[in-house]
Amino acid sequence: MDIRVGTGIDVHAFSEDPSRPLFLACLRWPGERGLEGHSDADVAAHAACDAILIASGVGDLGTVFGTERPEWAGASGSALLAEAVRLARADGWATANVSIQIVGQRPRFLPRKAEAEKAMGDVVGAPVGVSATTTDRLGFTGRGEGLAAIATALVHRI
Amino acid sequence: MDIRVGTGIDVHAFSEDPSRPLFLACLRWPGERGLEGHSDADVAAHAACDAILIASGVGDLGTVFGTERPEWAGASGSALLAEAVRLARADGWATANVSIQIVGQRPRFLPRKAEAEKAMGDVVGAPVGVSATTTDRLGFTGRGEGLAAIATALVHRI
Amino acid sequence: MDIRVGTGIDVHAFSEDPSRPLFLACLRWPGERGLEGHSDADVAAHAACDAILIASGVGDLGTVFGTERPEWAGASGSALLAEAVRLARADGWATANVSIQIVGQRPRFLPRKAEAEKAMGDVVGAPVGVSATTTDRLGFTGRGEGLAAIATALVHRI
Repeated sequence: MDIRVGTGIDVHAFSEDPSRPLFLACLRWPGERGLEGHSDADVAAHAACDAILIASGVGDLGTVFGTERPEWAGASGSALLAEAVRLARADGWATANVSIQIVGQRPRFLPRKAEAEKAMGDVVGAPVGVSATTTDRLGFTGRGEGLAAIATALVHRI
Repeated sequence: MDIRVGTGIDVHAFSEDPSRPLFLACLRWPGERGLEGHSDADVAAHAACDAILIASGVGDLGTVFGTERPEWAGASGSALLAEAVRLARADGWATANVSIQIVGQRPRFLPRKAEAEKAMGDVVGAPVGVSATTTDRLGFTGRGEGLAAIATALVHRI
Repeated sequence: MDIRVGTGIDVHAFSEDPSRPLFLACLRWPGERGLEGHSDADVAAHAACDAILIASGVGDLGTVFGTERPEWAGASGSALLAEAVRLARADGWATANVSIQIVGQRPRFLPRKAEAEKAMGDVVGAPVGVSATTTDRLGFTGRGEGLAAIATALVHRI
C-alpha cells in the first residue's frame, strides 16, 4: 500500500495579553484575541503539520520542531507546515490532501474560509479544506478558553 | 491522486425541553432527551456531512446549508447527508466509506448500531460504520451536557 | 474502492488507586498513575482497535469485546489490538497504517515514542505512528483527570 493516513490535534489557550495577535490557518486575524504558545500558536497549521508528519512516518511536531531545535522557536505556522511537507517529500511522500476542523466559538471563520484554504493549500501544494465549528458553548472551547484543531492528511508514495 | 480524506466534528447541547425528540445517526430515539440546534441537531449526520463535503472540496455545512440558505433550516440529518453526497458526486467524487464515532454517556447506542449503520449507509450509498464511546464521566459529554461526533470520510474520483 | 478509513476515540479517567499501573500504547509506564477501566485501559490501543474494526466494517470494541464476551475482560491492549487486526484480516482487510494522537498532560511521551511505535507496529503488522499533545491545561485532559486518544486507520482489501 502506497497510501497512508495521519491525524493530528492541537490546542492552545487564549492569551491574557490583549496585544498578542491571533494567527489561525496561516492567516493573521486583526482585532481577535491571540493564543498562547511557542511559535505563533496556529492550531490549524500545527495540527496539519502533525497529520502530515505522522502519516508519512517522518516524526511529529515534538521530534521535528521540539525544544532541542531552538532554530524553530517562534517560527510561523506557515514555516512549520512548509518544513513538514518538505520533510515528508524528502522521505518519499507527497500530500494528497489535508482536512482541518477548527473547534471554538471565535473567530467567525466562514468569511475568511476561502482565503485560509488558499493560504494553506499554497504552502502544502495540495488541496487543504478548512472548516470551523462551535461546541454550543460546551467545554473549554465553548467557554472561550482556547481553540482546538484536528487535521487529517492523506499522503501517497511519490 | 484520486483519493481524498475529510474529517468533520459536530457538537450539540442537550435540550432543556423534555418534549424535544432526539435524532441521532439518522434515527429517532423515543424516550431520550433531544439536542438543541437548528435542523434536527443530529451530530452524527452533521459530522458525516462535513467530512464528505471537506474531503471532496465542495464546501462545508456552513457554506452549503448556512443561514443564507433558509430552505435548509429545519432539514433532517438524512436530508442534509443526502444533499452532501449529491453535491460531492456532482463535483466528481464518490464516497468510499464513512466512519463515525459518537461521544457521550447516552443514549446506549449498541442495541441500534446495525439499524443506524443501515440507515446512514442507505443515504450515503456506501459503507458507514458508527460506533459510540463514553468519556468515563469526564468533560462536557461525560457530564451529560451534550453529544459530540467525529466523522472521517474517504472519497474517490468517479 | 478497495480502501477504507476508520477513526476511533477512547477516554479513560486516571485511577484513585496509586498501585494501579499505567498501560499506554502497548507499553507499561512505571511510576505513572494508572487509568481506570475494564482491561488495562490503554486508550491508544483501544482507539486503534476501534479505528481498524470500523474501517474494515467488522464491528467495534463494544460488539467484538463487549460485556457479552467475558473471555476478553481484563485483556491487554496488545491482545485486543492483535485480535482486531486478525478479525479485519479474516474479513479480507489488511491494515495499511494507523495514526494515533494521545491527548493529556502526562506521561511525557516523547522519550518512549519510538518504543511505543515499535510495540504497536509489531502487533498491527503495519506502520503505527503515535504522537502526544497537551491541551495547555484546558479541559479534562488538561486538568489531569484522564487521558484521551484518537486513532485513524487506513485499511485495504487483501
